Amino acid sequence: MTAKLHCFGESGNAYKAALTLTLAGYDWEPVFVDFFNGETRTEAFRKLNVMGEVPVFDEDGRILTQSGSIMYHVANRTGKLAGARDEAEEVLRWILWDNHKMSSQAGSTRFLMNFLPAEKRPKEVIAFMQARLKAAYATLETHLTGRDWLVGDAPTIADLSCCGYLYYPEPFGFSRDDWPGIDRWLGNIAALPGWKHPYDLMPGNPSDRDPK
Amino acid sequence: MTAKLHCFGESGNAYKAALTLTLAGYDWEPVFVDFFNGETRTEAFRKLNVMGEVPVFDEDGRILTQSGSIMYHVANRTGKLAGARDEAEEVLRWILWDNHKMSSQAGSTRFLMNFLPAEKRPKEVIAFMQARLKAAYATLETHLTGRDWLVGDAPTIADLSCCGYLYYPEPFGFSRDDWPGIDRWLGNIAALPGWKHPYDLMPGNPSDRDPK
Repeated sequence: MTAKLHCFGESGNAYKAALTLTLAGYDWEPVFVDFFNGETRTEAFRKLNVMGEVPVFDEDGRILTQSGSIMYHVANRTGKLAGARDEAEEVLRWILWDNHKMSSQAGSTRFLMNFLPAEKRPKEVIAFMQARLKAAYATLETHLTGRDWLVGDAPTIADLSCCGYLYYPEPFGFSRDDWPGIDRWLGNIAALPGWKHPYDLMPGNPSDRDPK
Repeated sequence: MTAKLHCFGESGNAYKAALTLTLAGYDWEPVFVDFFNGETRTEAFRKLNVMGEVPVFDEDGRILTQSGSIMYHVANRTGKLAGARDEAEEVLRWILWDNHKMSSQAGSTRFLMNFLPAEKRPKEVIAFMQARLKAAYATLETHLTGRDWLVGDAPTIADLSCCGYLYYPEPFGFSRDDWPGIDRWLGNIAALPGWKHPYDLMPGNPSDRDPK
C-alpha cells in the first residue's frame, strides 16, 4: 500500500523525509497538514504524534516520526542512500549534528523572519540564532571543502538531512554566495535524478496564504 | 586499550556519552577539555572535531563525535542499553527529538543564564528558549505518564540522551517539581547501578571557576 507522509511544503524537516522517499523510489504520497491554521496543535494530531510535529510517516497504519527516523527506515528498506557499512557512524554523526546545530535553528529562524507578522518578530532572538547558524554554516563549509558529499563518495541521508532548509527562497540569513563549498554541494544534490524543490514535492507554500 | 572521552563536567552532551559508557561497563577514562578557556575553538581541537564540540571519543585513535553516535557505538559493542530489536526506530526517534528540541535548547539556555556574565545575558533570547523548552518538557511529561522508560520496559540510550541536562543544579527554568512524570523517570535513571551525577563523572565544574 502507498505510504503516507503527513507534511507541508514549508517544513524543511518534512522535506528531508519527502526527498529521501522520492530519491529512493519509494511508493508514497503526501497528506497535507494545515500547520498555519493550527493543525499540529490539535488533540487529534497530538495523538498521532506526541511531539506535535511533521513529518509523520504512516505505512499501513504503522506510525513513524522524526525526519531522521523516517530517512533511516527508507534507507534500510531500500538499501539506498545509507552509505557503505563502515560509513554508518559518520552518517549518523552528521544527521545528529543537523538536528542539534543546523535544522533546529534554521527552521526557527526562517519561521520567525518570514511567517510571523513583522511587528512580532523578535530581533534579539533572530540575531542570536543567526550568529549560531553562521558557525554551523562554517562547520559545513570546512567539511565540504574538497568533498562532493558529506560522507564517502556518494549521496547519503546525511546530505539529505543537512540540506533540509537550504533550498527555500525565504530569507533567514543564509546565502549560497557566501559559502562556495555548500553552494557546490547543494548543486550536487539538486542534480540527482528525481530531485525536486520542497514546494514541488509537498503541498502548501507561502503563496497559498497571500492576502491577494 | 582504555577508550578516552574528551569532555568537561558542565557539558550535558558529554554527560550522555559518559553515563552510557559507565552504565554499559565500558573501559573508559575522561580527558578534560578546557572549554571555558577556549580549547574547543583552537585549531588543534577543530582538527580533532570539525564541529568544535565535546564529546569526542577516541578508541585506539579512531575518533567519533556527537553524543548520539558514541552512545550507539557503545550500545552496539556491548549489547547493552540499545532496547529490543523492534524498538530500534523508537529509540532513534527520541534521540533525534532530544537533539532537535531538548538538549540543543537546554544547553544553550543554561549557558546563557549561568556561564555568561550577568550583564551579557540576553533576556529576550532566554525567554524565547524557555518557552520552547516548556513545550519540550510537556511532550516528555505526556509521553512518560504511566511509563517508567521512554521506550519499552527497560532503560535505553534514549533515556540517557533526553536526561542529559536535567540533573544539573544551575537554574535554567526547569524544575522537577513541575513535572511529576519527568521527576519519577529521572529518579529511575538515577537508581540504576553505577549511575553518577555529571560533576562526579567528568572533570571540571563551576566551582573550579569561582573567584574565591
